[in-house]
Amino acid sequence: MNSFNVKEVLDQLTIEEKASLCSAADFWHTKTIERLNIPNVMVSDGPHGLRKQEDDPDHLGFGDSVAAVCFPSASALACSFDRDLLKELGNALGDECQAEEVSTLLGPGINMKRSPLCGRNFEYYSEDPYLAGELAASYVNGVQEKGIGTSLKHFAANNQEYRRMSISANIDERTLREIYLTAFEIVVKEAKPTTLMCSYNRINGTYSCENDWLLNKVLRDEWGFEGLVMSDWGAMNERVSALKAGLDLEMPSSSGINDKEIVKAINNKTLDMETLDTATKRVLNLIKHFYDNKKEGISYDKEAHHNLARKIAGECAVLLKNDNILPLQQEQKVCFIGQFAKEPRYQGGGSSHIHSFKVTNAVDSFASMSTTSLKGEEQPSAPFAKGYHLSTDKIDEALLQEAVELAKSVEVAVIFAGLPDSFESEGYDRTHLNLPNCQNILIQEVLKVQPNTLIVLHNGSPVTMPWINDVKAVLDVYLGGQAVGESTIDLLYGKVNPSGKLAETFPVKLEDNPSYLNFPGTEKEVVYSEGIYIGYRYYEKKAMNVLFPFGHGLSYTTFQYDDMKLSNTIMKDTDTLSVSLKIKNTGSVFGKETVQLYVKSPSGTQVRPIKELKGFEKVSLQPNEEKEILFKLDKRSFAYYEMSINNWYVPTGDYEILVGSSSNNILLSQTVHIDSTGHLPFVVTDTTTCGDVYKYVKDPSIFDNLIKKCILSVPLSEDNSLGEGSTEMIKQMFDGMPIHSILSFGDFGITLEDIRNVINQLNAK
Amino acid sequence: MNSFNVKEVLDQLTIEEKASLCSAADFWHTKTIERLNIPNVMVSDGPHGLRKQEDDPDHLGFGDSVAAVCFPSASALACSFDRDLLKELGNALGDECQAEEVSTLLGPGINMKRSPLCGRNFEYYSEDPYLAGELAASYVNGVQEKGIGTSLKHFAANNQEYRRMSISANIDERTLREIYLTAFEIVVKEAKPTTLMCSYNRINGTYSCENDWLLNKVLRDEWGFEGLVMSDWGAMNERVSALKAGLDLEMPSSSGINDKEIVKAINNKTLDMETLDTATKRVLNLIKHFYDNKKEGISYDKEAHHNLARKIAGECAVLLKNDNILPLQQEQKVCFIGQFAKEPRYQGGGSSHIHSFKVTNAVDSFASMSTTSLKGEEQPSAPFAKGYHLSTDKIDEALLQEAVELAKSVEVAVIFAGLPDSFESEGYDRTHLNLPNCQNILIQEVLKVQPNTLIVLHNGSPVTMPWINDVKAVLDVYLGGQAVGESTIDLLYGKVNPSGKLAETFPVKLEDNPSYLNFPGTEKEVVYSEGIYIGYRYYEKKAMNVLFPFGHGLSYTTFQYDDMKLSNTIMKDTDTLSVSLKIKNTGSVFGKETVQLYVKSPSGTQVRPIKELKGFEKVSLQPNEEKEILFKLDKRSFAYYEMSINNWYVPTGDYEILVGSSSNNILLSQTVHIDSTGHLPFVVTDTTTCGDVYKYVKDPSIFDNLIKKCILSVPLSEDNSLGEGSTEMIKQMFDGMPIHSILSFGDFGITLEDIRNVINQLNAK
Repeated sequence: MNSFNVKEVLDQLTIEEKASLCSAADFWHTKTIERLNIPNVMVSDGPHGLRKQEDDPDHLGFGDSVAAVCFPSASALACSFDRDLLKELGNALGDECQAEEVSTLLGPGINMKRSPLCGRNFEYYSEDPYLAGELAASYVNGVQEKGIGTSLKHFAANNQEYRRMSISANIDERTLREIYLTAFEIVVKEAKPTTLMCSYNRINGTYSCENDWLLNKVLRDEWGFEGLVMSDWGAMNERVSALKAGLDLEMPSSSGINDKEIVKAINNKTLDMETLDTATKRVLNLIKHFYDNKKEGISYDKEAHHNLARKIAGECAVLLKNDNILPLQQEQKVCFIGQFAKEPRYQGGGSSHIHSFKVTNAVDSFASMSTTSLKGEEQPSAPFAKGYHLSTDKIDEALLQEAVELAKSVEVAVIFAGLPDSFESEGYDRTHLNLPNCQNILIQEVLKVQPNTLIVLHNGSPVTMPWINDVKAVLDVYLGGQAVGESTIDLLYGKVNPSGKLAETFPVKLEDNPSYLNFPGTEKEVVYSEGIYIGYRYYEKKAMNVLFPFGHGLSYTTFQYDDMKLSNTIMKDTDTLSVSLKIKNTGSVFGKETVQLYVKSPSGTQVRPIKELKGFEKVSLQPNEEKEILFKLDKRSFAYYEMSINNWYVPTGDYEILVGSSSNNILLSQTVHIDSTGHLPFVVTDTTTCGDVYKYVKDPSIFDNLIKKCILSVPLSEDNSLGEGSTEMIKQMFDGMPIHSILSFGDFGITLEDIRNVINQLNAK
Repeated sequence: MNSFNVKEVLDQLTIEEKASLCSAADFWHTKTIERLNIPNVMVSDGPHGLRKQEDDPDHLGFGDSVAAVCFPSASALACSFDRDLLKELGNALGDECQAEEVSTLLGPGINMKRSPLCGRNFEYYSEDPYLAGELAASYVNGVQEKGIGTSLKHFAANNQEYRRMSISANIDERTLREIYLTAFEIVVKEAKPTTLMCSYNRINGTYSCENDWLLNKVLRDEWGFEGLVMSDWGAMNERVSALKAGLDLEMPSSSGINDKEIVKAINNKTLDMETLDTATKRVLNLIKHFYDNKKEGISYDKEAHHNLARKIAGECAVLLKNDNILPLQQEQKVCFIGQFAKEPRYQGGGSSHIHSFKVTNAVDSFASMSTTSLKGEEQPSAPFAKGYHLSTDKIDEALLQEAVELAKSVEVAVIFAGLPDSFESEGYDRTHLNLPNCQNILIQEVLKVQPNTLIVLHNGSPVTMPWINDVKAVLDVYLGGQAVGESTIDLLYGKVNPSGKLAETFPVKLEDNPSYLNFPGTEKEVVYSEGIYIGYRYYEKKAMNVLFPFGHGLSYTTFQYDDMKLSNTIMKDTDTLSVSLKIKNTGSVFGKETVQLYVKSPSGTQVRPIKELKGFEKVSLQPNEEKEILFKLDKRSFAYYEMSINNWYVPTGDYEILVGSSSNNILLSQTVHIDSTGHLPFVVTDTTTCGDVYKYVKDPSIFDNLIKKCILSVPLSEDNSLGEGSTEMIKQMFDGMPIHSILSFGDFGITLEDIRNVINQLNAK
């Protein structure tokens, strides 16, 4: 296929052909224009692997797909806190797409984890927009370096599965800007994704697909997005409105019905040709980009990618608790309990489901390790008890007893627990945070006979842990991809030192979650009344206990943080702040640490979280090795979105730079004073309070004269009949009094006109 | 003064005279129309006493007032849970007003306690609108029985002092209806207050004084209020707008300025005469009402009212904790520690501050009791140590040591602690929930030497109690009025058995409060994002620990709840449910118990609290005495405010009737099934989900035929490639799919017109 000139093709297309390009031919392909030799391109689901469906997919698009490699899912990937790793994964997936002739991998999904109940959280990164944005940008760069496109999704505020195709997510703009749009903004600006997929839901009443503010104003005008916007599959509502709002490509096909609506709108002049041309051009760009970057005859090494999946899984697992029991020693007599040890849950259900070419489990991987390391001796059987059925919540007494007996007979019991597929999936939300009852009972019964019990967790999102105080260790491997079996053994036996950090808070109980009072909403809308207080921003502000905090994760070695330096102690908000510090591996084994930087805003009248993540770096360190880490902070690191100026704003004040190994383990801190270069408008009206006149008007002397003429000239009662608080009360009441109320407190010979004159003079300054 | 005919007077008034009647002459009096012999009337602050200022008040209106009786403040009164007591108080105050020739007592204040930080909470009743409404209605009936008017305040949503004169309380209508307006609605309907005072603040952007929806539509048209609405003092913004919105009387005087604005508006036809006539008529009604009901030559017995204040205080105090130490025995050697024992804080600062004709304190009252009971012997000195200064947070080491030494020397130490005036007041909000540091330290130091330590608290709103696990008892007397000293001794020594119940939750810490993330808001607005989840509605929904729950309060006797009966087990929402039960005093002393009835709604898609108070009765019982209690529940007891019909609505389902001694001590429960007679509109559109068609359309067979033609005719994949969750996923995805999306899942030969036809047919049914 030779390349083509988009402008020239566009000039030759009929209205009907243009319209036809604005929707798919089927589930996965754009349309061809045979007359002009314009081929189609294919897009495929992912994004933690390639789900390429063969030519005859079922109508729902959830049928079988070609065998590929299943990497850890997004909730696991985010725990790596490792930009380089995400890029490496992106590279590998780009290669797979080149080999399979897929133009665009439909991901990454970077919606915020508003509630741990969202059924699709396993496909999303974090409760923190900065972390999600940074990691996803690396992933996109990785894929796109290989000439393959990505589709950043689901834009925006698709934070639940319940009625996701119709519900309105009602969110104030500041919260949208600071929390629910920021990750998208970061990826768009840092990685220029070729496409973006708009979400099913409405935002403040308007379908994302038809949201001019979202797609044209914010995404394109403000952020500079130059790619194509496609609909989520079946998200199209009113086609012409969507086209005007910036939705270029309808997915999947609507069998020509909506193409006709577009043609009709052009003909009756309710849609202008420029809008259609713009969308058509973007579809042509997508097609051209693929063929211009296509590498012929590419294949990829599945085993090599499997090994990459194993490596990535090792970087993602989070060691939540460890009372000196891990790493296990090979000479220890251990047993594995739980069906997941043989049939790990390593990915989630729905559009991201990968047809893995192979899967490893812990039992087999343990046997394989034993064979390798104890060569010459008889291969030890991997002692295993199934423990529970995945298909039910109910206890199987026989399996339970078998497991308890096995646990008695060993030195250490490793229980594999987690959420079965039916507990979390695309398409519906969870209703609670609990593990299946049979698993919790199993753990409690084993603990009665075996104090050296540790837990390996397979889960896409947080679970409660009623047994947390009694188990010796918890290793959370999340949904760790097809190599999770080997990776788990690597981690348990210290071949790999755990380095994952939680990208989301584990609450003590469901009710603790900030969205609890408003999740999943009513049949029509879900109100995000917790506002900017998502995840740790909420738990910290509310001073709540959590099961495990954001950023938490243990290691088999220890690290020392030291020597923090700021490039400035006083600066303008337009300056850049450099923060350096040293970190040293003070333990005895190689390890990696994720250094986290949070910014704490000055307290004041603005609604602000206690602190927010604004930097992170993952560092590899040999024992005794020390490295210097450098962070750069810019205006955005200190800003909030100020509605009165529709822009980011940094109030003047002292900002604390906090560095630590988790959100609740801050080890270093310093303060920088920032002077704002921003300006908030202030106009005096007769409803302005007297206190604000003195606070905000540079020269309030005219007002002062007015005030002295009247209210404050009256001596305050000194008989203390109001109680001790009276002086403070009078002061506060004056500060809070609107100017118009002056007239209510006596006849001072002042008229409404006098007051209006003073107001005009104050505003003239 | 002879009576007059309002209609006749109105007909004779000039425009200028009408306008003049719509604002005050000064701080407390309406204007006179000497030409027509229309006298003025006086209104006075209160409401837990009479604060009648002499003729020459200072301009802020906070100067001295005539000596009167200070009863317990509203936060204490509410703990009585006693309608009869509130009526008795109202009667007494009505007599005082008659004696002092005051036409209208400015109260009661029934704003909801959204945050424990609100500086004026001591003037308000409860976090529960039903409780506040019922008690305030009794109070109003009590005052008005004496021919004196009341002014229900502050209407509405004045739930903080911070920027109260300008801030906008942004509250969704359902929350307004269910929480912030309900208490007003109850009082208006049950007690017909003669006047109502509208609040300083704005609601959703509009000043209460200018809020046509609030004053004309809700208050007058819906609730049937026929009285006069006056402004809070200085709340007037734009006079003509306010008049149109239903604000009759501006308080205080605006020196004629706003009267002129009214005349101008009539003359230039921007205000019609009917509106002015209506307001003028209401002012004339107010004047006429006073003179028609005036009793000449009335006086009242101050000492008798003091004794009533003592009795009321005894009904209001809440015994929060008691580890078998109370009541004290006269033979026990006790000491009193803390300045409050000699100078009790018994009321709050601001417009409600009463000039008490006398005040009793615990030290003197103890001595007096001892004299009485130990006659013949030498009068024991009342052992007292000051302990701390009220003017500071800081510890006075000498006072502390003196107190500790005294505590060592006795059998029981009674520490009087609480909030000084400067910690809570009208005019500004609290910033924390703590007692002064010097008091907390004092308690902790005394506890080190004296395990038998108990606390008497003086406070207008909740405080934290870091020492709660170590003290033997806590008696909260709130701000108990001028007889609090005698009342405290009555309670400590068992002369009065405590019977108060908390009318508000005591949270463990400030951050726990539901409004914490949005209190007191920004400079312009405060968003009530917690919605209907105020107080116990929030703590229960979020499954949080609290220091003391709503409705909690101990007694020196015990009660047995039994024999609960419902009149129906199945009923319509238009029927009335009778609930009866028996309660018995199973202890050895006389006591009173407040039986509380809560309704628990069926779980479903509606946002509802776990349970809500819908009935309470206070019962007096001699030892072994048993009484039957009867509650009547009507539609409103089960309803929530449904926005789609702008009305109260009871969903069909099973409602639990819960009866207990506090919100967290439910002793009896039964279930009633209610069939709704209401009807929620349901219109099918192409954004209606498929699931909702089957859920809400009575005969969805046409739709069923359509669906069978297309999407569901495709056999679902059975290879389980999606994981175990797939069947559930497909079902849920179908249920959640809007009708318009059918076209996206295959070419079924169906057109947009086909779908629209089916929708029309579904709606026609």
